[in-house]
Amino acid sequence: MSHASSHGSYYGGAQQYGAPPHAQAQYPQYGGHGYARQPPAGADPVLWGHFSRVDQDGSGSITVTELRTALINDWDLDTVKMLMNMFDTDRNGTITFSEFVGLWNYIKEWQNCYRMFDRDGSGTIDGHELASAMRSFGYNLSPMILSLIEQKYASGPTGGYGPPPGINFDRFVRACVVVKTLSESFQRADSDQDGWVQLNYEDFMRIVLTAP
Amino acid sequence: MSHASSHGSYYGGAQQYGAPPHAQAQYPQYGGHGYARQPPAGADPVLWGHFSRVDQDGSGSITVTELRTALINDWDLDTVKMLMNMFDTDRNGTITFSEFVGLWNYIKEWQNCYRMFDRDGSGTIDGHELASAMRSFGYNLSPMILSLIEQKYASGPTGGYGPPPGINFDRFVRACVVVKTLSESFQRADSDQDGWVQLNYEDFMRIVLTAP
Repeated sequence: MSHASSHGSYYGGAQQYGAPPHAQAQYPQYGGHGYARQPPAGADPVLWGHFSRVDQDGSGSITVTELRTALINDWDLDTVKMLMNMFDTDRNGTITFSEFVGLWNYIKEWQNCYRMFDRDGSGTIDGHELASAMRSFGYNLSPMILSLIEQKYASGPTGGYGPPPGINFDRFVRACVVVKTLSESFQRADSDQDGWVQLNYEDFMRIVLTAP
Repeated sequence: MSHASSHGSYYGGAQQYGAPPHAQAQYPQYGGHGYARQPPAGADPVLWGHFSRVDQDGSGSITVTELRTALINDWDLDTVKMLMNMFDTDRNGTITFSEFVGLWNYIKEWQNCYRMFDRDGSGTIDGHELASAMRSFGYNLSPMILSLIEQKYASGPTGGYGPPPGINFDRFVRACVVVKTLSESFQRADSDQDGWVQLNYEDFMRIVLTAP
């Protein structure tokens, strides 16, 4: 195809991300019903402790309900579903201890990442902080696209003439994964790397609906 | 362009939609602090009553916070933001009485619609009910796309080998508006109506991020 020329720069090679800050504080279920099971050989005892507390019924694996109740209570549902899809790697509907280790580390890395980008320590990510985060992930997004992301993932409705209310941790993680997923889908569809894609309705809908 | 041929049928002329069932039950703030203001001439007294109850501080217009607290408590945040964007037509960040009338009727119509499609009266929309709803709106979606919608808007994570847990009212409304918005965007981009669109990264991201 003959259009455009800039390629490569608009979708970046985003590195592996990190994970959420208040997870520790969100473990109120200490001393639950789970009986003390033996950790697998070599398991990190701290992580095993976290896992056992989430695994309320001591079944040895975490159901989605247990996860949502214990770990990420009141988080954005789409973010929780996204994490389940990422870490329930054997797709059996529960999180085993080894899957839990991946989830835990992912959330911890994102927490560090979020703290770093929340420069003013406000607890939410504003427009400037978002732009800086996206740049550092390698995405060269226009001001219009950044503004759309800021509005869409703001943790409350945008009203009046002020800026949107900022992006909370859970929705920030989702926003970043959405940008990554969409950019990778675009890149895959742009097989000749000229910056343009041709899509029929089916492919277009599939790509959009596959993003978290 | 030369690809494909089927056009017109895959994106339908979806009619105006309806609105949500438990809105009535979600008005617990009766006898709030709002003093009895006079309704505008000709205002429906029942609707005025609803409006005044949501307008807790009696300011004559509803803020996003009042709306979220009173009308659509614990609804999916993205659905609430979508409704605010649709009905705060003067974009001043609050809902006036006339804007409220539009919102109220929209939600009521969707409620009727939802009850109709929830054939088995389970209170959620399952995959078959979703397919039937989309067909009746004029969208001819493939089984794969329907399945993606069912999973993405299910009101809980999909786990194990069973079907997803079904779509609640608020997320169903969002799902329908998303399909409508994306289909219309595709149709606009498909200027020669051959069923294919050409998009650069900027347009692609803009279209996706503009959907609720």
